[in-house]
Amino acid sequence: VVQGERMRDIGEFAFLRRVLADLPQGPEVRVGPGDDAAVLDLPPLPVVVCTDVLVEGSHFRRDWSAARDVGRKAVAVNAADVAAMGARPVAVLAGVVAPPDVDVAWLMELAAGMQDGAADAGCSLSGGDTVAGPAITVSVSAIGVVPGATVTRAGAHAGDVVAVCGRLGYAAAGLAVLTRGFRSPRLLVDAQRCPQPPYQQGVVAAAAGATAMIDVSDGLMADLGHVAEQSGVRVTVELGRVAVPTELEQMARALGVDARTWVFGGGEDHALAACFPTAGTVPQGWDVIGRVEAGAGVDVEGWPDWSTALADGGYEHFRR
Amino acid sequence: VVQGERMRDIGEFAFLRRVLADLPQGPEVRVGPGDDAAVLDLPPLPVVVCTDVLVEGSHFRRDWSAARDVGRKAVAVNAADVAAMGARPVAVLAGVVAPPDVDVAWLMELAAGMQDGAADAGCSLSGGDTVAGPAITVSVSAIGVVPGATVTRAGAHAGDVVAVCGRLGYAAAGLAVLTRGFRSPRLLVDAQRCPQPPYQQGVVAAAAGATAMIDVSDGLMADLGHVAEQSGVRVTVELGRVAVPTELEQMARALGVDARTWVFGGGEDHALAACFPTAGTVPQGWDVIGRVEAGAGVDVEGWPDWSTALADGGYEHFRR
Repeated sequence: VVQGERMRDIGEFAFLRRVLADLPQGPEVRVGPGDDAAVLDLPPLPVVVCTDVLVEGSHFRRDWSAARDVGRKAVAVNAADVAAMGARPVAVLAGVVAPPDVDVAWLMELAAGMQDGAADAGCSLSGGDTVAGPAITVSVSAIGVVPGATVTRAGAHAGDVVAVCGRLGYAAAGLAVLTRGFRSPRLLVDAQRCPQPPYQQGVVAAAAGATAMIDVSDGLMADLGHVAEQSGVRVTVELGRVAVPTELEQMARALGVDARTWVFGGGEDHALAACFPTAGTVPQGWDVIGRVEAGAGVDVEGWPDWSTALADGGYEHFRR
Repeated sequence: VVQGERMRDIGEFAFLRRVLADLPQGPEVRVGPGDDAAVLDLPPLPVVVCTDVLVEGSHFRRDWSAARDVGRKAVAVNAADVAAMGARPVAVLAGVVAPPDVDVAWLMELAAGMQDGAADAGCSLSGGDTVAGPAITVSVSAIGVVPGATVTRAGAHAGDVVAVCGRLGYAAAGLAVLTRGFRSPRLLVDAQRCPQPPYQQGVVAAAAGATAMIDVSDGLMADLGHVAEQSGVRVTVELGRVAVPTELEQMARALGVDARTWVFGGGEDHALAACFPTAGTVPQGWDVIGRVEAGAGVDVEGWPDWSTALADGGYEHFRR
């Protein structure tokens, strides 16, 4: 890559030639990038497909995140959706929009980050599209296969326990840090730049008999609300069962905020939350945090004004 | 939909509830939109996946195209890619970016158009993501299955014939008309607003023994150039074999341009171009237009300065 070289200098086709020169493909990819479509030889299992879009300004800022982080995050959020169905990711595709004056080096790093993210999730970056437009937009689609049971948001029953696996609140704390102009602590800032979802635990939870599952992208209570709504049940989280990590406590104290709003309201860590028939069936690495009851809605037992406290916690597009 | 209602008034979740209220799903869709991912029960066949992004300004203009056309086009361009592999589309996913001040009615029509496009292509609109951002961007991914042979761009051999199925030049003529401020003839303008790819002919061509195939999205000569490059052959199109429709001739005369630049250089009609071992194996509905030889590159026999004439014909992102 030539220093200062921009997309308008080399065009779409030369850029694609460079990107496609080094994209390792897994054994299930018969035809990789560079044709009209990728071709996958999948085992005879249910196939899951999903798509998530990241837009500069809404989901990332180029002054906060390196291109490599953005690419890795774009793949991670989709691979987490695949995991939340009880599936393992096989391939991802990337649709990238960028202004003509963007540095070629930035987009090459974005592609490298997507490749990193695919490697993290154990899948291949197998195709995509790169077009000119006013704002950097990264749309990723993921394809996975379900080796055992498919787990939707709709299968929770009264009597189930609720458990989580993965980080809660770290990305939100990182955002609070970055928003105030700080660049540390790295643990929190890096969590905002790119999540580390527990991909393998989706299949593990399905094998353990999970009745419903979701990845926490909007915030724990918002996402458990989706499970409650789609399962027709009530989900109660017990405050004392949800760990508030020391790093978050310390930062919250320094910033004069309540760390619980990050843990219960912050999305973007892409932890997995699932319901299991009994506490005894919950796999190692998962923490039981609550229970499923007959009824509707969600509640935090032991925190009467949680809903007011989180009112600004969950992110909804177009609303702000 | 309330007159004048905008996305910022209702937010992402209420919008999704409205869209998801009426999205029929085909028999292969076990879990449709509304969960972390869609779940498909596919037959044990190779799976093709692809993604294409449309951006306002580059691919469509809201003053030229209704939302319904844009949605239909976004699905059509992807379903054509699926067809060009010898596959039939099963499902599409949509990632939509829109400014908060966009009319809810516009986005509902966009979704209806995507549903129309899915119906045209015989597949289901099974999921997606809707986020706020500065420019309307529609990223569609398509999933299909290959019932017979998979046809890539790379299998053409010297001695093959080249054939096309579907329209050439109509969308480019429509763009020329719209660019000059006209809204008719409808045939051409509608072709620009939404292509009508011959979806079923992809599987037909594969069954007939097609050695290479591509959908014409960048322009006939540009796309045959991709086949020539990826197959390691030379493709020669014979001028006299390529029909220039009367409608295009008339419009070109009125505008003082050469209709052949639309037919040989215009993309966006998403015709299928394929190579077959012999003229006798070319299916009904396909027109033989040339031949494959040893060598490299593409040529139009009988039109010495075709390359100069088309210099502005093929579209390359970031270049203009």
